[in-house]
Amino acid sequence: MSRRAPTLEDVAREAGVSRATVSRVVNGVRNVDPQIQDVVRRAIARTGYAPNRAARALVTRRAETVALVVCGAGDASDTPQDTFAARVFADPFFGRVVGGVVGFLRPRSLHPVLMFAETADDREEVLTYLRQGRADGALVVSAHADDPLPALLADARLPAVLFARPSRPVPLSYVDLAHRDGGRLAAQHLLARGRTRPATICGPLDVPASQERLAGFRDTLARHGHAFVPVAEGGFTLDSGAAAMSDLLARYPDLDGVFAANDLMAQGACQVLRDRGRRVPEDVAVVGFDDSSVAVTCRPQLTTVRQPVEEMAAAMAAVLDEHVRGARTEPTSVVFDPELVIRDSA
Amino acid sequence: MSRRAPTLEDVAREAGVSRATVSRVVNGVRNVDPQIQDVVRRAIARTGYAPNRAARALVTRRAETVALVVCGAGDASDTPQDTFAARVFADPFFGRVVGGVVGFLRPRSLHPVLMFAETADDREEVLTYLRQGRADGALVVSAHADDPLPALLADARLPAVLFARPSRPVPLSYVDLAHRDGGRLAAQHLLARGRTRPATICGPLDVPASQERLAGFRDTLARHGHAFVPVAEGGFTLDSGAAAMSDLLARYPDLDGVFAANDLMAQGACQVLRDRGRRVPEDVAVVGFDDSSVAVTCRPQLTTVRQPVEEMAAAMAAVLDEHVRGARTEPTSVVFDPELVIRDSA
Repeated sequence: MSRRAPTLEDVAREAGVSRATVSRVVNGVRNVDPQIQDVVRRAIARTGYAPNRAARALVTRRAETVALVVCGAGDASDTPQDTFAARVFADPFFGRVVGGVVGFLRPRSLHPVLMFAETADDREEVLTYLRQGRADGALVVSAHADDPLPALLADARLPAVLFARPSRPVPLSYVDLAHRDGGRLAAQHLLARGRTRPATICGPLDVPASQERLAGFRDTLARHGHAFVPVAEGGFTLDSGAAAMSDLLARYPDLDGVFAANDLMAQGACQVLRDRGRRVPEDVAVVGFDDSSVAVTCRPQLTTVRQPVEEMAAAMAAVLDEHVRGARTEPTSVVFDPELVIRDSA
Repeated sequence: MSRRAPTLEDVAREAGVSRATVSRVVNGVRNVDPQIQDVVRRAIARTGYAPNRAARALVTRRAETVALVVCGAGDASDTPQDTFAARVFADPFFGRVVGGVVGFLRPRSLHPVLMFAETADDREEVLTYLRQGRADGALVVSAHADDPLPALLADARLPAVLFARPSRPVPLSYVDLAHRDGGRLAAQHLLARGRTRPATICGPLDVPASQERLAGFRDTLARHGHAFVPVAEGGFTLDSGAAAMSDLLARYPDLDGVFAANDLMAQGACQVLRDRGRRVPEDVAVVGFDDSSVAVTCRPQLTTVRQPVEEMAAAMAAVLDEHVRGARTEPTSVVFDPELVIRDSA
């Protein structure tokens, strides 16, 4: 499977020019006769020569690679069939992040290295990878609050951008959504649909995004006289949404509207409602959050609060690129607006 | 965001030893006093020094990085909201591939670089990336038949392993599933459930795996007297499964069993059956393929033919590692057996 890689000398021999001339063409030095340049380029194509990346990196000090780090609370019970990575990708959210990041990087011939950080050792490996210059910076998506990695990156002064504001202040750039406005949009829509007994399935309350979505929902309802809103907490998975819906129905059997803090939980809620003979949206209107692929595969299709994940991920990559190029030195934040997408469930 | 990276000199100063001694410890040269080694290692930890990867790569000629290349037919209509990458990740299949690959690579401190190859330029970029030694080899997942990349990799003698046998012979290693046996398992189960009018929603027929699943299904039914089996072709998406199910119901309204060649299409089929008032499994039994997360989120939960994607992906990474280390020089194939997983839909 291996063959000696073609060298600068091979190209020089093929082109019939000196090694120095090939080197100048490869490195884009301008004062080379255009015809000679053509000859050299054709020789490069014929030999399959590629400039030695490692050697080039020694000069440019750029890896032209970005670490895409996913942080989560993996545990020792992980099996090959149920790894943290597999669970991450079971939510369509992360695929959208990758899509957005790749959309920005690809036209620039930059590539993401996928890293998963669950343990202290993993985090040390990420830091070492960056310190070694194997990647120019890190894009960090944390699946849980209180992730220690952002602070470690900031302390080490390594270029990094976070997806979502960290729960405690860290001097790093981040992109985020106006989650509170998203909760407001969901509440306004349920009210506009004439719902008088709305409830909500919130996300894990140690995650800032969950707190904000819930706060926006409750605030808006409070302004319309709803002093009390039933809440059940889920874990952003389909099963947890189903369990939360069962719990809400048991406690508040006359509820007529539900805002679930992501589409997967909304799908779980819809399944439970159907199993209990409640029609969606006639008996209970359901609003999701994300506008992921689940929103259109769910029956009924979900009315949901759209989070422009792809655009947010692309912005995250763009800000990191500015930091790496030195075009930006201070942390910045880019906050996107949510949008209501009306389909069949509410 | 930037700070001067600690150097070998900083470590030497901190440890109170010579630069040469630090270098020998870093490079694992054996004849260094163990106590001195400890002192140097502690100084490395305190300074945060990391050996220059680029410099090391010049010596070892290993990137300790693997390209995970996804090949598909992207087109010019891609928008930031609907990129090829986003569509790839909409199918839980690919997340399982990543989970399996990462499961093998992580304990070895190897990392996957995610690359998407749709165009000739993309393929050239993958080849260049490998020729430059930025990755030690490629793991290739092709979303469509007749992908030109495997042949290009073989011609360039670059280490690569394919997920699934290519449609035309290429001298590269691959992992695969005994797809024909999977089709057989589905047919046997529908027969065992007393179904007398089975049909199938097959995958795209230019993909070898689709052909094999269909052939195994039809062969087994033929051995039980079913000379003719209604077939509708889908594209492995939920919508295409729904459309194929509508088509089959229109043509063969009395069908009582369906084998869909993946779980997403089976989910689409179940939705159409429910919309038409057919009970699953009482009126129509449905068997899927893959045993992906969709199988358990679908209502009813899917009886399906399990493809051990994570194990297959890990094996793909393991074979590539053998090629890269020179422990294996000739192409090999590793074929996994499918397994029937019985849930509620059949």
